[in-house]
Amino acid sequence: MAKVAIVYHSGFGHTKVLAEAVARGASSVDGTVVDLISVADAEAKADTINAADAIIFGSPTYMGSVSGPFKTWADTTAKVWFGQGWKDKIAAGFTNSSGPSGDKFSTIAYLWTLAMQHSMIWVSQGVMVGTKQGDVTLNRLSSWGGVMATSENAAPGESNPSKDDQASGFGLGARVATLASKLKG
Amino acid sequence: MAKVAIVYHSGFGHTKVLAEAVARGASSVDGTVVDLISVADAEAKADTINAADAIIFGSPTYMGSVSGPFKTWADTTAKVWFGQGWKDKIAAGFTNSSGPSGDKFSTIAYLWTLAMQHSMIWVSQGVMVGTKQGDVTLNRLSSWGGVMATSENAAPGESNPSKDDQASGFGLGARVATLASKLKG
Amino acid sequence: MAKVAIVYHSGFGHTKVLAEAVARGASSVDGTVVDLISVADAEAKADTINAADAIIFGSPTYMGSVSGPFKTWADTTAKVWFGQGWKDKIAAGFTNSSGPSGDKFSTIAYLWTLAMQHSMIWVSQGVMVGTKQGDVTLNRLSSWGGVMATSENAAPGESNPSKDDQASGFGLGARVATLASKLKG
Amino acid sequence: MAKVAIVYHSGFGHTKVLAEAVARGASSVDGTVVDLISVADAEAKADTINAADAIIFGSPTYMGSVSGPFKTWADTTAKVWFGQGWKDKIAAGFTNSSGPSGDKFSTIAYLWTLAMQHSMIWVSQGVMVGTKQGDVTLNRLSSWGGVMATSENAAPGESNPSKDDQASGFGLGARVATLASKLKG
Repeated sequence: MAKVAIVYHSGFGHTKVLAEAVARGASSVDGTVVDLISVADAEAKADTINAADAIIFGSPTYMGSVSGPFKTWADTTAKVWFGQGWKDKIAAGFTNSSGPSGDKFSTIAYLWTLAMQHSMIWVSQGVMVGTKQGDVTLNRLSSWGGVMATSENAAPGESNPSKDDQASGFGLGARVATLASKLKG
Repeated sequence: MAKVAIVYHSGFGHTKVLAEAVARGASSVDGTVVDLISVADAEAKADTINAADAIIFGSPTYMGSVSGPFKTWADTTAKVWFGQGWKDKIAAGFTNSSGPSGDKFSTIAYLWTLAMQHSMIWVSQGVMVGTKQGDVTLNRLSSWGGVMATSENAAPGESNPSKDDQASGFGLGARVATLASKLKG
Repeated sequence: MAKVAIVYHSGFGHTKVLAEAVARGASSVDGTVVDLISVADAEAKADTINAADAIIFGSPTYMGSVSGPFKTWADTTAKVWFGQGWKDKIAAGFTNSSGPSGDKFSTIAYLWTLAMQHSMIWVSQGVMVGTKQGDVTLNRLSSWGGVMATSENAAPGESNPSKDDQASGFGLGARVATLASKLKG
Repeated sequence: MAKVAIVYHSGFGHTKVLAEAVARGASSVDGTVVDLISVADAEAKADTINAADAIIFGSPTYMGSVSGPFKTWADTTAKVWFGQGWKDKIAAGFTNSSGPSGDKFSTIAYLWTLAMQHSMIWVSQGVMVGTKQGDVTLNRLSSWGGVMATSENAAPGESNPSKDDQASGFGLGARVATLASKLKG
């Protein structure tokens, strides 16, 4: 039974919609326990995160990287870093912003950098750009290191971020849960 | 009279179309001498490049960064690097690939890294995402560190990369030439 | 008369020592007005920052990038970003952490990314690795995009970060002030 | 029985010394088949690489990223990329240059980017900075995403790169082989 924690920040709710899609994807893998944790609660839920087999990081891209609240939480993980408590856990990441490119690569690269400091194992998105899956298109934005989404400047909802990008998020959650289960043996 | 050298690699001609747009932009600034140099000729034209006030780097994004031919040329600049011969020159960059994001940020970030090793001064694209200019849209892909373009998997031509992205390239050329002229005093 | 603002965060005081060295360097250039501003005061001093010709960003490297307080401030600059109020200003950066490499490149690359979003002009460190200058060695750590320093896990002071790295910071301040003055004409 | 391929470029032999240390580390894990492949031979040995469970990438850092020969080979992997033939293989990386930081982070980040395009799984160095192991110090340079080494400007040999950095390389090889074996089940 693999445990997957998703730790995310969402300023206006769009990244939360994406995080929920990631959580559904992880939950779709039999025997996976999924914890969806806002960074606001993440210090209080440190035991849950520390007990996970995989941690998926999510943040909007603000001014070219993860948001201030996400980074502030990341800094608090220096405590567990000191003892390398997340060593060999699986990691992955996702981000959302309004533009097609919009420095989202910088955010994903930072999430990888954070995971590396924690001696984790990083999982790629694992989907060819523009892969059709029923009605949706996976990896629409040609991202590889993690899932990128775009959202309209409107209220978050079931199509904002787009169903395409939510499906990409679902796929990442499922991919991480599958690998976590396999590594747990 | 400012001198702007544009050093680029183009595998199938799309990045060359973009490079030519950058050159037209630089030439549009009164009193600018522009040299458009393929990496295949760049070692032979080292004197021209070394005499420029600004060097604009361009490469397709292949497998997540600049192309092999571009990088091979970049390595040859270790000679001028050793004497810091490009110190205080202006630098900027552009890239092209097929997807919206497609790790083009990684390519632009590398071009900046190269310029930094040469102690240069790096100029941003300087255009808000989605800026309308007559019939075209500048910075369509929400890039900041340099110009990003996409091209269709078809022959390069006057609309491939798109006129939008060529206009962004033109703008970068003009921006660099203007600053080079100003710094030259 | 060029105005240089240095906006920095310092968790334990080491990065502040480095920031002060940068400020001394900028002040060493005749006719430069220097404002040294902690991120804690930066929103209150937004008018000063917005009026500067150059902004130098400084942050410790925490968990692989700028600190949470620095990033939280960077996010607040979205307001001025929206109107591109820092366009064409000069930018540069510095960082400090305990290890020789320690992902400090990631921090400098982020500071550049931030400056690019603001359509600024980024100045390299501009010093060959291991350059001797009297008693000190500049660019000891082989950094190019900005100044990197290391500090001992002890109280900050006149030799912590090392005098070498403080001299590198001084050099960056002077380099930025000189260019700002030149561009101002 | 896990198969580990190490694909590297070495200009003057220093990175080869490091690559051999990585190979010894991988071979130290029971039942591991190790192939140490220079990029000059990598196209000819594509079948071996494609059959591996893990691929470890190694390159000197030249002008701020992987070398031209390494990147030229990376571009040839677009063929296998098109069919995503390396999907779910394990990846890791190492680099060498003369300086302590020297933009080696940029090289490691590129090797990760390459692995991501191939939908691989990236393994961190997994060693706390400055870890003592008998006579040697692992992760001397405070790197996390991969192994960084420095070499003296002298002939490569059993102490150049240093024994510390070779031991870090050995550790990376062993770590990758262990994970490859575990994932193979």
